[in-house]
Amino acid sequence: MRGLMMDMPLSIPALLRRAESVHPHKAIVSRLVDRSVMRTTYAETLDGARRLAAALRALGVQPGDRVATFCWNHVPHLHAYYGIPASGAILHTLNIRLHAEELAYIVTHADDAVIIVDKVLWPVFEPVRARIGHRRIIVISDDHDIPPGTLHYGDLLAAQDDAPPFEDMDEHTGAVLCYTSGTTGRSKGVLYSHRALVLHSFAEALPDMLDLAEASRVLAVVPMFHANAWGLPFACALVGATQILPGPYLDAASIVSLLESERVTHTAGVPTIAHALLAHLDQHPGHDLSALRLMLVGGAAMPETTIRAFDDRHGVKVIHAWGMTETAPLGTISRVPSELADAPADEQYAWRATQGRPGPFVEVRARAEDGALVPWDDQAMGELEVRGPWVASAYYPGDDAPDRWTDDGWFRTGDIVTIEKTGRLTIHDRAKDLVKSGGEWISTVTLEAVLLEHEAIAEVVVIAVPHERWGERPLALVVATPGCRPTLPDVRQHLDGRVARWWYPDAVEVVDSLPRTGVGKYQKHRLREIYRDYFEESAPQ
Amino acid sequence: MRGLMMDMPLSIPALLRRAESVHPHKAIVSRLVDRSVMRTTYAETLDGARRLAAALRALGVQPGDRVATFCWNHVPHLHAYYGIPASGAILHTLNIRLHAEELAYIVTHADDAVIIVDKVLWPVFEPVRARIGHRRIIVISDDHDIPPGTLHYGDLLAAQDDAPPFEDMDEHTGAVLCYTSGTTGRSKGVLYSHRALVLHSFAEALPDMLDLAEASRVLAVVPMFHANAWGLPFACALVGATQILPGPYLDAASIVSLLESERVTHTAGVPTIAHALLAHLDQHPGHDLSALRLMLVGGAAMPETTIRAFDDRHGVKVIHAWGMTETAPLGTISRVPSELADAPADEQYAWRATQGRPGPFVEVRARAEDGALVPWDDQAMGELEVRGPWVASAYYPGDDAPDRWTDDGWFRTGDIVTIEKTGRLTIHDRAKDLVKSGGEWISTVTLEAVLLEHEAIAEVVVIAVPHERWGERPLALVVATPGCRPTLPDVRQHLDGRVARWWYPDAVEVVDSLPRTGVGKYQKHRLREIYRDYFEESAPQ
Repeated sequence: MRGLMMDMPLSIPALLRRAESVHPHKAIVSRLVDRSVMRTTYAETLDGARRLAAALRALGVQPGDRVATFCWNHVPHLHAYYGIPASGAILHTLNIRLHAEELAYIVTHADDAVIIVDKVLWPVFEPVRARIGHRRIIVISDDHDIPPGTLHYGDLLAAQDDAPPFEDMDEHTGAVLCYTSGTTGRSKGVLYSHRALVLHSFAEALPDMLDLAEASRVLAVVPMFHANAWGLPFACALVGATQILPGPYLDAASIVSLLESERVTHTAGVPTIAHALLAHLDQHPGHDLSALRLMLVGGAAMPETTIRAFDDRHGVKVIHAWGMTETAPLGTISRVPSELADAPADEQYAWRATQGRPGPFVEVRARAEDGALVPWDDQAMGELEVRGPWVASAYYPGDDAPDRWTDDGWFRTGDIVTIEKTGRLTIHDRAKDLVKSGGEWISTVTLEAVLLEHEAIAEVVVIAVPHERWGERPLALVVATPGCRPTLPDVRQHLDGRVARWWYPDAVEVVDSLPRTGVGKYQKHRLREIYRDYFEESAPQ
Repeated sequence: MRGLMMDMPLSIPALLRRAESVHPHKAIVSRLVDRSVMRTTYAETLDGARRLAAALRALGVQPGDRVATFCWNHVPHLHAYYGIPASGAILHTLNIRLHAEELAYIVTHADDAVIIVDKVLWPVFEPVRARIGHRRIIVISDDHDIPPGTLHYGDLLAAQDDAPPFEDMDEHTGAVLCYTSGTTGRSKGVLYSHRALVLHSFAEALPDMLDLAEASRVLAVVPMFHANAWGLPFACALVGATQILPGPYLDAASIVSLLESERVTHTAGVPTIAHALLAHLDQHPGHDLSALRLMLVGGAAMPETTIRAFDDRHGVKVIHAWGMTETAPLGTISRVPSELADAPADEQYAWRATQGRPGPFVEVRARAEDGALVPWDDQAMGELEVRGPWVASAYYPGDDAPDRWTDDGWFRTGDIVTIEKTGRLTIHDRAKDLVKSGGEWISTVTLEAVLLEHEAIAEVVVIAVPHERWGERPLALVVATPGCRPTLPDVRQHLDGRVARWWYPDAVEVVDSLPRTGVGKYQKHRLREIYRDYFEESAPQ
């Protein structure tokens, strides 16, 4: 028997109608290219969003068409976040940090009808444009000096005085497209539905997740071209939170200055950003961050020492989370459960350094190499599988990757984890980065974390290298701190008592630098290629 | 273009799977009939829910069948809340306070297959049973002394050792049925879907709504036979909050003792309960309610003086909300917006005494008698209309009431309201209770609130009585405080400067008592019948 409830779709237009009616006066704050800080409101921002939707329609954009952005975090990018899905078209956020070749592939694969580009990013975009054939380009620029053949963003919006209100649509309609920039292979597109993004917003705002309220003041350092800026533009609009947008200035000094002057309550970014903020705060004490209640860190593991350092030295609470582009992205979050509220600090920090527990309606399980499910009370590692209403069911058409989904429909994350009782997740490695030595797994992530504590080591990557006897053995590639040159005996001594002896790297190579991907992750795949014959060559003849 | 996200239903089984896996150890606390306090866990409670589902299946209950409860707030009632919807059947909560005649009508109308009854309520249920033909009755009893022809709840559950896990189902499936006990006419059934209850849980837990977290300790004084206990059993399970169930003991002393001993953080009830708690706390000072962060009050208007009294005298924060059985029930909530955080106390209290603003995805509008929409920046009154994913689209089959829905699908609440800018709602009256005098509306609710402040008036109801010249005029029916006998001149003097002169009642009748409905509301409809000729008879001959 069917319930007798209204069939109201979980659509972004419905979410925006609420922001427009209940929170029209709430602030949106944005740092401009000239470093000045501009203040506007939800009402004005949503007016811009409706104008953009109308302008795109006038350009011939149809429901389902892809409209790409190549932008920093600022108000026009919010117009696009809100107006493009609300118009029935699909917002496609391009990662400005990828190589032009890869970006051209992505634009062509998604077949973007229109691309909206920041004028300050034109030098980065130009080589992409040369590779994507004829597509409409709209340029966001304070002046009218824009490249030939492009349209002026401000002019287009100014012409739309009769933009219609936000109208509902089927909640399963595609809303946002985001390509994962994996460390191997071609980027693949994840197409979020309106329903997924609305549900993600509800979950994200919950007290045990990000705890977002009307009174919150949120600065997403995470770029709006990374996995929906972790859903924050939508979650903030849902609850009416103030948004603070950093524009192109993501350096620690600029961010800290906004955190302080705007009395930010919530911020979010990858560990690299967190480490930069920590260093800046250490070097420039005296900032008043008393309003800051939560710094969400995800995208890679955050060492416990950094979480402690923020607490101890700056009174800033770091919350660790795990997610992927394929999970919209919020999967798990590491909130200390209430039964540990009075536990010793060490125990609480150990908790906070894990990836935590799944959010509501996110279900997790781990599967061993033989396909058996790993029980939650076990210490055995397995590959993390996940399902939920905001988890991808497939990649954008043309990129079949059926091996990423199980026969019963769970997404295979490629992360090697343990799951403890009550769902506490610890990520030990990416499946493809593990060292498989004598049939046992060695976590390169764990080795790297321990090695980083050595004073002679500034950066380190541990990779699996083929080995005649053991199958694979770990090799540590190290960037030394100035004036140091760590050796294998140094490293082995440092590891004594910290990890199992058979985990010790067989060799240490000191290098000048380590290659990174467009999103700042180490290119382990490439390093494995370069060093694939290392143990063969160095073996005694 | 359709999004590429997993099609995971918003089902109660999915919600319960999370509680069972992530929060199995969290506590459920319940006061038993013998007044002792029993402690159990989500794991055990959900085991009971699965056993109940299996036991009902064994009795022949099919998906879609109605299974009724006639129970207080306790653990077996939670089994029913969770296990019946999870089995695909429909939980039908019967209001134990209705007249046997009305209950028999409801049971017959819903065609309940099974009724689960508290043994302590058997004397109340027996006259119902005589009127509903043969239906299976299950009795919850600590001993085996149960009425002939009934089944023993504990025995049925004990027999189900292999109850299957919770399996998903279509989210639009009916889950819970609750009849509104209106003040006029027959009760009508509202059939909540799984989707509606899950979304209501997400919304209810948000920081600006009830702010429910894993660490919360929640005592619903509102009975589980009133509008899903305001959704708390589901919202608590979603976030893993501890639940404290008062059993049959709803007197102020018993509730206060649980609030204190269980360090309750959130409680919820109607104004009658709030007033009783306030009186008890005033008379018995010294209780430690420092854990109590929020007392949600809804179901009727809460005077500002009571909200202040809780703050000033007991440090308890009362939050005002509005909802109906037809809205699952959470519609609006009165949280002071952040821009008033530093406003004078009077301004904040005035805010908190309104019904507040709509929750996410609840949309409100008001319509004047001529059908025109009332603008939000206006002071004009209109009938409140509402829509959203947890608002009823129709009553249970057999009770068509098409006049309750507009042509464009909004629910007509029958409440007369003003809506201010940014959606702040104030309820002035029920449409059917308004006095229409000379073409203008007089709010009986406002008159009653002001009259209640007169020291000679213990209770008061103002009703519309037909009047030759004005159409209708107000009549005040008053229960006097002991030793007093308020007169019309007293009342008129009290109203001077407080309401418009043409609002003054034309007459005051002192009565011994005022009739109430099964849910404790005054039977204004009945009083209007009794006094319909009042002004005719008392008019000068």
